[in-house]
Amino acid sequence: MNENLQTEKVQKNEDPTREDLKKVDPRMQDLEKVDPKDEDLLNLNFRHNVNGEDLVIAVAQDYETSEVLMVAFMNKEAIIKTLETGKAHYWSTSRGKPWFKGESSGHIQEVKEIFTDCDKDAVLLKVKQTGAACHEGYYSCFFREISHDNSNDVNIKEYKLKIVKDKVFEPEKVYGEK
Amino acid sequence: MNENLQTEKVQKNEDPTREDLKKVDPRMQDLEKVDPKDEDLLNLNFRHNVNGEDLVIAVAQDYETSEVLMVAFMNKEAIIKTLETGKAHYWSTSRGKPWFKGESSGHIQEVKEIFTDCDKDAVLLKVKQTGAACHEGYYSCFFREISHDNSNDVNIKEYKLKIVKDKVFEPEKVYGEK
Repeated sequence: MNENLQTEKVQKNEDPTREDLKKVDPRMQDLEKVDPKDEDLLNLNFRHNVNGEDLVIAVAQDYETSEVLMVAFMNKEAIIKTLETGKAHYWSTSRGKPWFKGESSGHIQEVKEIFTDCDKDAVLLKVKQTGAACHEGYYSCFFREISHDNSNDVNIKEYKLKIVKDKVFEPEKVYGEK
Repeated sequence: MNENLQTEKVQKNEDPTREDLKKVDPRMQDLEKVDPKDEDLLNLNFRHNVNGEDLVIAVAQDYETSEVLMVAFMNKEAIIKTLETGKAHYWSTSRGKPWFKGESSGHIQEVKEIFTDCDKDAVLLKVKQTGAACHEGYYSCFFREISHDNSNDVNIKEYKLKIVKDKVFEPEKVYGEK
């Protein structure tokens, strides 16, 4: 991101807090143990605050084709887990808990390289994607193009979402029937 | 973002469900139907709130080489301006105002294609970048690799930031002396 920023705390949502989650998920208690390492964490700027969690934006990109696969968030623990295991770990802002990508589907991301941007509030993961990145069955989550049929018409109302990729798998076969 | 799941099987695991997302953003409940006032905005989910501004994450990628150039945010106005002008417009979270990329430097981004992801809270811009994307003089903002010298050592403390790209321009010549 082309901006040098200080952390901006924005707390607007109603998700359970980390303190709430500790009560119901013992694994959360272990996450505090990594705190002593935080100062060594590459001076990353976890300025994106979602429900009390300090995060960097993470972009996953196919290491061979350079196709952008998905965008997510990582907290400090996710960065550490990713570096230690070589497999992409994120922070799920919806569930308020760590997210080992592919844990349920088997569609893990083997991390080949990691980069950070100029103001260190985003990371770029170059990954070897098993299966597909998107739970909807597409290799990349960016399977919808914002486009219009009339190349001469730039009226915003003419734009539509159009699926421009083919599915790699059927979600119900991986995640079970709805 | 691969966080829009709704199967029972997945609910046991790390991947978030649609119900989870509704907790984060009540507007998710309306995701399936187009909100009349959002009709012009492709039902994008501006769920990232920074200082009162509702935003989607935007990733800019070189349309020819597929190099990821930068990550930023866009509000509704930025989406509209980008579609109407064909040049990337963002929302500057640091300045709290619209940001026409390249307005001061001349390093504009001509948008060739735009995609959105499965839960529509992020967009991917394929752009023709004039000059360089990064204000520090690099073509991509992701010019630092997170790496270590010892391939056998996965200790987090061994990781360092290393500049792995060459500058395209000297910032003081474009933006003036500091």
